[in-house]
Amino acid sequence: MSISIDNSPQRADGRALDQLRDVRITRGWLDHAEGSVLVEFGRTRVLCAASFTEGVPRWKKGSGEGWVTAEYAMLPRATDSRNSRESVKGKIGGRTHEISRLIGRSLRAVVDVSALGENTIVLDCDVLQADGGTRTAAITGAYVALADAIAWGRAHGAITGGAEVLTDSVSAISVGIIDGTPMLDLPYEEDVRAETDMNVVVTGSGAFVEVQGTAEAAPFNRGELDSLLDLAVGGTATLAEIQRAALADAPAGR
Amino acid sequence: MSISIDNSPQRADGRALDQLRDVRITRGWLDHAEGSVLVEFGRTRVLCAASFTEGVPRWKKGSGEGWVTAEYAMLPRATDSRNSRESVKGKIGGRTHEISRLIGRSLRAVVDVSALGENTIVLDCDVLQADGGTRTAAITGAYVALADAIAWGRAHGAITGGAEVLTDSVSAISVGIIDGTPMLDLPYEEDVRAETDMNVVVTGSGAFVEVQGTAEAAPFNRGELDSLLDLAVGGTATLAEIQRAALADAPAGR
Amino acid sequence: MSISIDNSPQRADGRALDQLRDVRITRGWLDHAEGSVLVEFGRTRVLCAASFTEGVPRWKKGSGEGWVTAEYAMLPRATDSRNSRESVKGKIGGRTHEISRLIGRSLRAVVDVSALGENTIVLDCDVLQADGGTRTAAITGAYVALADAIAWGRAHGAITGGAEVLTDSVSAISVGIIDGTPMLDLPYEEDVRAETDMNVVVTGSGAFVEVQGTAEAAPFNRGELDSLLDLAVGGTATLAEIQRAALADAPAGR
Amino acid sequence: MSISIDNSPQRADGRALDQLRDVRITRGWLDHAEGSVLVEFGRTRVLCAASFTEGVPRWKKGSGEGWVTAEYAMLPRATDSRNSRESVKGKIGGRTHEISRLIGRSLRAVVDVSALGENTIVLDCDVLQADGGTRTAAITGAYVALADAIAWGRAHGAITGGAEVLTDSVSAISVGIIDGTPMLDLPYEEDVRAETDMNVVVTGSGAFVEVQGTAEAAPFNRGELDSLLDLAVGGTATLAEIQRAALADAPAGR
Amino acid sequence: MSISIDNSPQRADGRALDQLRDVRITRGWLDHAEGSVLVEFGRTRVLCAASFTEGVPRWKKGSGEGWVTAEYAMLPRATDSRNSRESVKGKIGGRTHEISRLIGRSLRAVVDVSALGENTIVLDCDVLQADGGTRTAAITGAYVALADAIAWGRAHGAITGGAEVLTDSVSAISVGIIDGTPMLDLPYEEDVRAETDMNVVVTGSGAFVEVQGTAEAAPFNRGELDSLLDLAVGGTATLAEIQRAALADAPAGR
Amino acid sequence: MSISIDNSPQRADGRALDQLRDVRITRGWLDHAEGSVLVEFGRTRVLCAASFTEGVPRWKKGSGEGWVTAEYAMLPRATDSRNSRESVKGKIGGRTHEISRLIGRSLRAVVDVSALGENTIVLDCDVLQADGGTRTAAITGAYVALADAIAWGRAHGAITGGAEVLTDSVSAISVGIIDGTPMLDLPYEEDVRAETDMNVVVTGSGAFVEVQGTAEAAPFNRGELDSLLDLAVGGTATLAEIQRAALADAPAGR
Repeated sequence: MSISIDNSPQRADGRALDQLRDVRITRGWLDHAEGSVLVEFGRTRVLCAASFTEGVPRWKKGSGEGWVTAEYAMLPRATDSRNSRESVKGKIGGRTHEISRLIGRSLRAVVDVSALGENTIVLDCDVLQADGGTRTAAITGAYVALADAIAWGRAHGAITGGAEVLTDSVSAISVGIIDGTPMLDLPYEEDVRAETDMNVVVTGSGAFVEVQGTAEAAPFNRGELDSLLDLAVGGTATLAEIQRAALADAPAGR
Repeated sequence: MSISIDNSPQRADGRALDQLRDVRITRGWLDHAEGSVLVEFGRTRVLCAASFTEGVPRWKKGSGEGWVTAEYAMLPRATDSRNSRESVKGKIGGRTHEISRLIGRSLRAVVDVSALGENTIVLDCDVLQADGGTRTAAITGAYVALADAIAWGRAHGAITGGAEVLTDSVSAISVGIIDGTPMLDLPYEEDVRAETDMNVVVTGSGAFVEVQGTAEAAPFNRGELDSLLDLAVGGTATLAEIQRAALADAPAGR
Repeated sequence: MSISIDNSPQRADGRALDQLRDVRITRGWLDHAEGSVLVEFGRTRVLCAASFTEGVPRWKKGSGEGWVTAEYAMLPRATDSRNSRESVKGKIGGRTHEISRLIGRSLRAVVDVSALGENTIVLDCDVLQADGGTRTAAITGAYVALADAIAWGRAHGAITGGAEVLTDSVSAISVGIIDGTPMLDLPYEEDVRAETDMNVVVTGSGAFVEVQGTAEAAPFNRGELDSLLDLAVGGTATLAEIQRAALADAPAGR
Repeated sequence: MSISIDNSPQRADGRALDQLRDVRITRGWLDHAEGSVLVEFGRTRVLCAASFTEGVPRWKKGSGEGWVTAEYAMLPRATDSRNSRESVKGKIGGRTHEISRLIGRSLRAVVDVSALGENTIVLDCDVLQADGGTRTAAITGAYVALADAIAWGRAHGAITGGAEVLTDSVSAISVGIIDGTPMLDLPYEEDVRAETDMNVVVTGSGAFVEVQGTAEAAPFNRGELDSLLDLAVGGTATLAEIQRAALADAPAGR
Repeated sequence: MSISIDNSPQRADGRALDQLRDVRITRGWLDHAEGSVLVEFGRTRVLCAASFTEGVPRWKKGSGEGWVTAEYAMLPRATDSRNSRESVKGKIGGRTHEISRLIGRSLRAVVDVSALGENTIVLDCDVLQADGGTRTAAITGAYVALADAIAWGRAHGAITGGAEVLTDSVSAISVGIIDGTPMLDLPYEEDVRAETDMNVVVTGSGAFVEVQGTAEAAPFNRGELDSLLDLAVGGTATLAEIQRAALADAPAGR
Repeated sequence: MSISIDNSPQRADGRALDQLRDVRITRGWLDHAEGSVLVEFGRTRVLCAASFTEGVPRWKKGSGEGWVTAEYAMLPRATDSRNSRESVKGKIGGRTHEISRLIGRSLRAVVDVSALGENTIVLDCDVLQADGGTRTAAITGAYVALADAIAWGRAHGAITGGAEVLTDSVSAISVGIIDGTPMLDLPYEEDVRAETDMNVVVTGSGAFVEVQGTAEAAPFNRGELDSLLDLAVGGTATLAEIQRAALADAPAGR
């Protein structure tokens, strides 16, 4: 007698539960920026531009340390129906602020600001097209743009000394529970149906930088939390490889 | 033969690692609000006011469902040095937005919006004095103010029908790792020293509503994450008892 | 033969026409501020925090003089129905500006800025609960918080020299004409009914700092103006005594 | 034997202490506005435009009552050195708000809103040149523009019924104490030297609408207050005559 | 045999097709400004104030060059129906920005910034009454105010050296095509009916500074464009004479 | 004897004076938008998204006519050094407003709003990379996205009736005078050196929609103006062909 376990794919796009969407990282997408990446998680498409400038904000001056920060935004027609521009509304929404802060924190977790020296790198992550997972794609792509900008800084003599600026790599992925089943890397149509939604930021060596889980429809228990973390650790390990492969190509940029 | 385990308190204020600060919940602190609570976690002091109004925002009209939302803010001199008012700066900072959204989501997780009917409850959580854990105190106090406002709505005939509006209670606590040691309920001086900082929102029945862990100084591993979650589950269980006790008193309010 | 004068109380709360509400001044309500007072005029409750910082705004630098200013604000649910936050609206209303300026001017009238030296004291007056007379309560409480902050500055060596910084005390009260009868210290329900409404700021020695009378419903004549001024002078004399008594207690604050 | 009393003028511009500057009221200065006045108090020059529109703000709809409001502003180069535009700064200053509110209240004090019917009149008072007393000139001129706009409303059938909309006239003047001497109608150079500064709004029949006295340098006593009020009552009586004379001319406007 | 060509005026106000409205330039309209002009193109009335200050914006410091800029605005009741103030709305509209920039560029085209030295002149052009052509009247009047401010700067020793600051004069006029007929200097009623509308800025020596033609209703061909340019060149030649005549009078200003 | 005329290319990128940069139009670049184009003029890269919605703004309701409008913006790192986001600054700059208005007017010049019916199309033109000519690339690309959105509207039954919505095509190009030589389609490095800069918007049938010429360094004469117009007419004729070719491909979009 045999028991048949249905482990076959059950998602709209035919993916396995623990499978990422097609991930593409295109370096050097912009001519001006010191580092730039067009990152795609399926139909989600984020342009990450790293701007390197010598000097730091006033409150960091004389510290010997650099600064890394990020700004996230979405083009009006990145989504299925058009959203008003935040510049036209005259203020930035809560979600935008929250994600900008998350990206900045995630990148700073793998930066040795002393090794960076008194330089500033700003990561602009502009969502050209949104289909779920924009913040995780942004973190994953921004890391690669950041690496290119740091290489630029070293090549142009703005970063000196032998210490590595990047202490590790970092990537992020979304996981969620839909109809009671934990899944990896949710597109929009799955995201809106998820009972629980979690974004997890993990270093290349597998340590957690951020864990942000939210019960959208129903609180989740410890077992579900553990399953979600397992999926995220697996997904980010794959992303770390993709990042490594992308950076193994010849240096991009100006 | 005996093994000596050092379980003695090692914190500046003499608390055990898994011990909450003194928590006080004072209902009916305001005369006008339909529900109001002054909640104190040690020296952190948050005034939570629940405003009940009949009707819902336009995008909810005709849905038969109610709406619960929250706004968090801090008085200029809640902190050790004065901060500029956000009303004077003309815009709300990212942190403020992020916490307001967290409080709203946490409360909605235990509200049956159909049972609430087309009524709106706004929770204003104003930090009068800040000493770490303001968002967790706000959630914990806001739940009690919300419960009072719902009772007011029922007593005044705005909420009808037999269904319970509150499906559970909800509270929140911060946990963190300091010098490698996981601890519960961090005051400001511990919070700034924490390598990892996590806010956990848990229902009265012990399920997770939000898990927000951030590596401030060093990424954390799975074992550390598990310890933090254990501490948080214990702390919120105690908070749920304190909430129950507070609500067992005679009804407060206008 | 006797003439019967009807001097019996005729107000909703049973007070005599020239009688203040219960006034309470609680010093040291906040742990961080250099001076802080919770002031209550009946149900009106204002938290006054004085922040002392060395140095002055740029336009005062090198003048040898200090600066004292104030900001007034109201929590959303201080009033009977909820008001939108000014930080959310993105601008400060006219009334808020006007009262902030009044409080600042009133306090500066009793400060010798040369004796203060190049130090700045900001008074934050946040109305926790409003029941008429919030600006007069704010001025009355802010004076006490200011005195504590000045004492702090002297104790911590930021204020030097023998000259007194405070040249006098200052307090304020509202008066109004209701149904033709002048009355002292109007709560909200009287305030909305008043034909004429006047706020008067008076020094401890009985001189006027501000007189702001407004005909809400009907212009007032010289005789009525004189009666209102008499009531205000009496009321502020009592407030000055209450301030003196509060400050006679042991020094509060950090 | 004779006693010589020094009653000779002692002011920079040779005026007596109780003498107004040259006051000119030019009606119909604009072609489009339903009422418009260029009012001059010496070199102070304010353009007052009354805009009449049928209908009232939403919160007045169905009340049968009209609404009168005012906005005060200053051109950037009205003053001796240029001020930034409030539209460029993106927010309106406290002083601007305060004066706009004062003008609106002063005019409403002489308007029977029921007789006005559900119509709105907005008074725009733009200071083209400032030399002290801009708010008092604005009130004095705005009253005349208001009267013309009301006449326009009646002539065009928007105001019906026999009741007078204007119950009285209203004008305003500044008074102050300089070197211990009370004086009427202060130009800028006197205003900055005044120990006490008071703006008084008085109806044509001599009753007070607003009394706003401020001790700029030294608190003032009851006797000084009385002298200032006497001067203001005399000055506004003259202004009321000038208004009457201006309105006696043929109707102005479109 | 004769052919009758209808060259008679056909415009509402009886003007010939190539005829300007009555143009008046009144210098010294303000007492404080270093240069000021009330310019009238028919019923269009713009107050141009030139503010001269020593020094330049930070980004020009040490360049040896001066800076000339302009701000355009409209009083709320300059138009037939009232417009909201941009200061109240909290932001400046696109049209306002566009015209401010045009005025600044037009004036800078005739200024030798090296001869000006490190001085700044700001031109405030406030439309008191609008009847078409406000931007062209503003440029024409602002040039005269600018000339007076430069003379003031020279007279007060802020501008030194022998070089002329003004290299030419500059004026502007609108032209348009109505019912297929090109016309000069359109008032509002013609402007709204125009198929094509063009603003042309021309120097005193007849060279173009700006050509801004817009097809409002129907695209225009090369022949029509040429006719419009001919009209504009003729109109600005007349304006240049009027400017010269105005400046030939005795110096105005403070 | 022969005279040698130097007609050989003299531009940094080797182009002839009347030659466009490489122009690429990629339709259907976005999955969500009803029409979308990535347009490239050399290194200038603009993403044009057309959003089709049924219904019109309130002021157009019941008119039977549709509405077409545009918003232009630039990503922070589109340029050589990073610019602050307008959403972060909280206001939109003058240049942004001006270009948005230009794009909207240019497109409306070829739209029959009655044939469009009560539908709204918003064109978002976001500059991903800027190298001169961003507004002309935006107009040229937006026209194609608009055509696709109109086709979408017809295919989905939102546009009915037989009338053509587009009455013509429209494109735009920049021209300028550098070192006395008129040239077509200026990249950034030429644009900053141009004495005169002109943007010309021309229909497919060769009529002018907008002519915006500005003397950046020296006023220009009639002959120069004519040369610039000749170049622009030639360049836009080529652009019109490129647009036609792009639209000849199979329909793009969702």
